[in-house]
Amino acid sequence: MKHTFTTLIACALLSVTTLAADPLPSWNDAAPKQDIISFVESVTKEGSTDFVPAPERIAVFDNDGTLWAEQPMYFQAIYIFDRIKQLAPRHPEWKDREPFASVLKGDLKAALAGGEKGLLEMTMATHAGLTSEEFNKSVTDWLATAKHPKTGMPFTDMVYQPMLELLTYLRANGFKTFIVSGGGIDFIRPWAEKAYGIPPEQVIGSSIKAKYEIRDGNPVIVKLPELNFIDDKGGKPVGIHHHIGRRPIFAAGNSDGDFEMLEWTTSGKGARLGMIIHHTDAEREFAYDRESHIGKLDRGLDEGPKRGWTMINMKNDWIKIFPK
Amino acid sequence: MKHTFTTLIACALLSVTTLAADPLPSWNDAAPKQDIISFVESVTKEGSTDFVPAPERIAVFDNDGTLWAEQPMYFQAIYIFDRIKQLAPRHPEWKDREPFASVLKGDLKAALAGGEKGLLEMTMATHAGLTSEEFNKSVTDWLATAKHPKTGMPFTDMVYQPMLELLTYLRANGFKTFIVSGGGIDFIRPWAEKAYGIPPEQVIGSSIKAKYEIRDGNPVIVKLPELNFIDDKGGKPVGIHHHIGRRPIFAAGNSDGDFEMLEWTTSGKGARLGMIIHHTDAEREFAYDRESHIGKLDRGLDEGPKRGWTMINMKNDWIKIFPK
Repeated sequence: MKHTFTTLIACALLSVTTLAADPLPSWNDAAPKQDIISFVESVTKEGSTDFVPAPERIAVFDNDGTLWAEQPMYFQAIYIFDRIKQLAPRHPEWKDREPFASVLKGDLKAALAGGEKGLLEMTMATHAGLTSEEFNKSVTDWLATAKHPKTGMPFTDMVYQPMLELLTYLRANGFKTFIVSGGGIDFIRPWAEKAYGIPPEQVIGSSIKAKYEIRDGNPVIVKLPELNFIDDKGGKPVGIHHHIGRRPIFAAGNSDGDFEMLEWTTSGKGARLGMIIHHTDAEREFAYDRESHIGKLDRGLDEGPKRGWTMINMKNDWIKIFPK
Repeated sequence: MKHTFTTLIACALLSVTTLAADPLPSWNDAAPKQDIISFVESVTKEGSTDFVPAPERIAVFDNDGTLWAEQPMYFQAIYIFDRIKQLAPRHPEWKDREPFASVLKGDLKAALAGGEKGLLEMTMATHAGLTSEEFNKSVTDWLATAKHPKTGMPFTDMVYQPMLELLTYLRANGFKTFIVSGGGIDFIRPWAEKAYGIPPEQVIGSSIKAKYEIRDGNPVIVKLPELNFIDDKGGKPVGIHHHIGRRPIFAAGNSDGDFEMLEWTTSGKGARLGMIIHHTDAEREFAYDRESHIGKLDRGLDEGPKRGWTMINMKNDWIKIFPK
């Protein structure tokens, strides 16, 4: 009976803990926190009109600026710049070719002047030809030593503690949590499971094409210099459709690139929660919105409140930003 | 204490059931069944050299001919032919245009003469323009009444009982089960959860492109007449890479279209299981392999045994074919 009583005690303790503990301790007791808790309670309460069966509890999260920081530029761009510097000896032509030349000169503003197109060109130049396993290792190795230019922190330490709590809280209530990022799907997968508890198969993102081939007798997946999918703006609901095949009931983002994902999520029937994180904390993180070159939030700032979306003011609503 | 004792009894019963029951009752006690059980036991036994942590227990299954029947032609082709007949009044030009003309005349052999390309053209003509929700409903409505031309059974009754048991057995051992089909991803999703216990987000397949738009004030995903991805042959490992982002440890298929998926799966490190279902039972199902126009199995029949793949002889290894 020893095992029996241990189990009983464990069960009793678990129940007490579940009832007593605050699932979102880094969130101030303000409207957003109440919105989240009310929403989760309504969709999980059997018999309630808003009840949603567990398999349909799909929650989607943008990554850059929503789960981790994105200033002064997307962390993947920093990775790409480091890769360009690393590969430069093998590409003497880059010295005279933009945007590579600007990267090598350290003029990051000029390097980013080409916008999405320039970034895509650099992505393909630095990722193509690698096998899936080589690319995975390259990202993992980079993250192990690279530091953020302003905070000096490892990038994976710059995830948002309140969002980690939200992910855990949703999963504890039967939700399946997905990342839906404009960033590269294969850039996020190597570390998302450890950082967020989100497995590779629940990461959706932009991608380049790939092919299967036998290399030296071993089957490999090789990345190709050809665009496959841009998971941004109207591409986000499409990416959700291709990967998940049903409409989420919860979506969180921070920029106008997430607008359509929130619109698609919240226009379904029944209880829905759309969330916009507004970066308002210049002291603890960054403050930016309508005029930002990264994570521009303009339309969402005007329309979000009218559409009943939960607007997070980082400075006021979050007790803590980063875990450490 | 009432609750307590009930729980104890339930736990005790559960343990006894787990130990006593045969998880694969429709499989004869032959080598393939032993291969499956040995594999599952080795990867789930903590401390064993073959142990695989639960999140990495990814199992992938072809659909047509592996989880449900595929003769005399893919069931999706029968759906497409029915759609063409239904839509014909709105497309008078189809009377004079192949392959549509042959479908309308009931000459299915001629209709299929164009192979993959012709089927794709028909797929796009009948699927494009529909929203994701309209398409879902169209498939669901069709399955509710359509009958197999030979057996007269509803198509969703023509799933293989031994494979349902295998899916359940793998999931009970911490595996995540995926479909990786050459067929249309959106054709499979509406019924895969009920038929196989596989949710939409664990279905990978061929697809046409889609776009997000606002139609009459409502956001919709609309299917476009443009190919997105063919999930067959070397496309299967690529589809797995895009959707799952890690290499499976278990793969089952039945045709040479599954060869690369099995090759990719079984060439990883550690314990792996590749399975080929050989259709050998003309009496209870269908018998076909090297010469078949659907589900051709030639290379796999020669190389499978040499590569250590588990070869299923349907006639000998399966006690029961269909659930009913």
